[in-house]
Amino acid sequence: MPRVYNFSAGPSMLPEEVLKTAASEMLDYQNTGTSVMEMSHRSNAFIAIAKDAETLLRELMEIPENYKVLFLQGGASTQFAMVPLNLMGRKEGKKADFVNTGMWSKKAIGEAKKFGTVKVVATSEDKNFNYIPTLTKDMFDPQASYAHITTNNTIFGTRYRELPDTGDVPLVADMSSNILSERYDVSKFGVIYAGAQKNIGPAGVTIVIIREDLLGGELDITPTMLGYKVHVENESMYNTPPCYPLYVAKLVFDWLKAKGGVAAMQKVNEEKAAMLYEFLDGSKIFKGTVEKEYRSLMNVPFVLPSDDLNGAFVKQATAAGLINLKGHRSVGGMRASIYNAMPVEGVRALVEFMKEFESKNS
Amino acid sequence: MPRVYNFSAGPSMLPEEVLKTAASEMLDYQNTGTSVMEMSHRSNAFIAIAKDAETLLRELMEIPENYKVLFLQGGASTQFAMVPLNLMGRKEGKKADFVNTGMWSKKAIGEAKKFGTVKVVATSEDKNFNYIPTLTKDMFDPQASYAHITTNNTIFGTRYRELPDTGDVPLVADMSSNILSERYDVSKFGVIYAGAQKNIGPAGVTIVIIREDLLGGELDITPTMLGYKVHVENESMYNTPPCYPLYVAKLVFDWLKAKGGVAAMQKVNEEKAAMLYEFLDGSKIFKGTVEKEYRSLMNVPFVLPSDDLNGAFVKQATAAGLINLKGHRSVGGMRASIYNAMPVEGVRALVEFMKEFESKNS
Repeated sequence: MPRVYNFSAGPSMLPEEVLKTAASEMLDYQNTGTSVMEMSHRSNAFIAIAKDAETLLRELMEIPENYKVLFLQGGASTQFAMVPLNLMGRKEGKKADFVNTGMWSKKAIGEAKKFGTVKVVATSEDKNFNYIPTLTKDMFDPQASYAHITTNNTIFGTRYRELPDTGDVPLVADMSSNILSERYDVSKFGVIYAGAQKNIGPAGVTIVIIREDLLGGELDITPTMLGYKVHVENESMYNTPPCYPLYVAKLVFDWLKAKGGVAAMQKVNEEKAAMLYEFLDGSKIFKGTVEKEYRSLMNVPFVLPSDDLNGAFVKQATAAGLINLKGHRSVGGMRASIYNAMPVEGVRALVEFMKEFESKNS
Repeated sequence: MPRVYNFSAGPSMLPEEVLKTAASEMLDYQNTGTSVMEMSHRSNAFIAIAKDAETLLRELMEIPENYKVLFLQGGASTQFAMVPLNLMGRKEGKKADFVNTGMWSKKAIGEAKKFGTVKVVATSEDKNFNYIPTLTKDMFDPQASYAHITTNNTIFGTRYRELPDTGDVPLVADMSSNILSERYDVSKFGVIYAGAQKNIGPAGVTIVIIREDLLGGELDITPTMLGYKVHVENESMYNTPPCYPLYVAKLVFDWLKAKGGVAAMQKVNEEKAAMLYEFLDGSKIFKGTVEKEYRSLMNVPFVLPSDDLNGAFVKQATAAGLINLKGHRSVGGMRASIYNAMPVEGVRALVEFMKEFESKNS
């Protein structure tokens, strides 16, 4: 079957070039006579892959030298616990501030409550998370150990347009669904974490970027594998890393660099998103669900006037090779996730299909 | 380059058929138009892969119905914490018994000490772990929450020939380096866990087999992702699983079933190991390091009379396409890891090479 345009929220599309390279190297990686899957993680060949992955990510995100980069397992869900286990003890009060912008923020909040006192400084739950609350510096507690945000909300399709000023309190960000899709000044953050399965690579590898001075304050109850410091000291090889997903992530970084890096990718992402949002704004039957100012570049939820039409649209789109457009149950309707690997042609094909659907159904 | 024989302790060889299938399906899995890496873990296609993996594993290991099977992340190192976090609280005393048969046992012991009182009931450290201690039922505390063993010791090349009788105390086993290589009666265990990267598939997926009645007793401090029950309730999809490694594991299970299952594989493994041990026993210069009765079928450490010869052997073997034979620093010399995917021809080639080396160097 020809390749389809896959609008899944994650795991999601990967660049075809990356898949082709992975397939061609499967039985013999660069003349080693082995697959990357079979390599000892202590072998020179694999260590080179891991080091290249880090170097490329540092270059792509312009990560300052006083930040460590980790490639871990367990997804953002494990980070929901690792962040408080490692950072909550920074100050005696064991307090952390959270902004609640959707289901993933909520999960992070729930987990942090196990290990300290959480204050939700703002929430957009009143409007089913269709905006990002306005945040001012006085909302954040200067005595908090850290403050936590979710830069892009996969389910509700919102994103922060600017970062909150939390003063000296380290800002921690779950960047799972928009890392590498737009430029961020890493020095504004204490910790950035992201599951791979949206903009980085296959599920199974998790990126953590952490400012050095935040290392080493784990609570006593922290399992060894959930302490950042041990992974930093062992360069992400305290135990066997998820070698193959990390290798594919490295191929994605190569691809992204060849495409011109994050700034160039952001431009493409803005074009892709604009194409879709402009159509939604002019449509008689399709309607975006998010306040304009906070619209995500990555996840675009939209609805039709009835559930019957929503269902018909998803079904017909699937038949046309535009798959995984069904929206999350918390929003309903449709959601198009248009991560880095979704080509402009894919979004164009979707918009054309929506136009056609509109002309037939209005 | 032609494929080499890879004697790595893990990650390690995979069946060539599995790699070929993975390569051929990389861009289009069974007419879906997507790679397995790109599939939503909630898609029908991926759920079928995950279900097949479980069904095959249940069949291969004859797992009784009152056991749950989990596919998690984090490796055995994460299990070193998950086991005590989930099981230590079974009894008020929060006690656990451990047998220390090497570095991985030690790590499991160190981690368990964070969450309860650990008693090391026996150790083989006096002889650098070259045997398995004799274990009798009276050595185990009937009031312990569980008892822990390492069925095969990757570094020291030992394995249990029979399981200890721990009475009503659940036996927990780290089976990372010999799961699926020989038959085990799962009903003798409370929990079996194993990292994938030896006999199962690529690094990044971890198998846990747990008796139902042991679920639900997590300590309060347990991070959500480290509780077994939440993963059972969500059929290993509480969060995004390591989809691609799990898919390759499923291909390995298919391959193993086609080869006749675990009993047939055990026969081949016994032949492979016998070939190597018989040569070692008859050699003038090569010498196995483990007491005969406790020799592993999977990891075969051996030494030459001098470090110079060890070094020369490893170097020449590598040049001959027999790679990763350098021993672990705790034993020195060489180690041949001959997991399921190592064909008989690979062991034969190694023995022939050793014979030749002996004739040139004695």
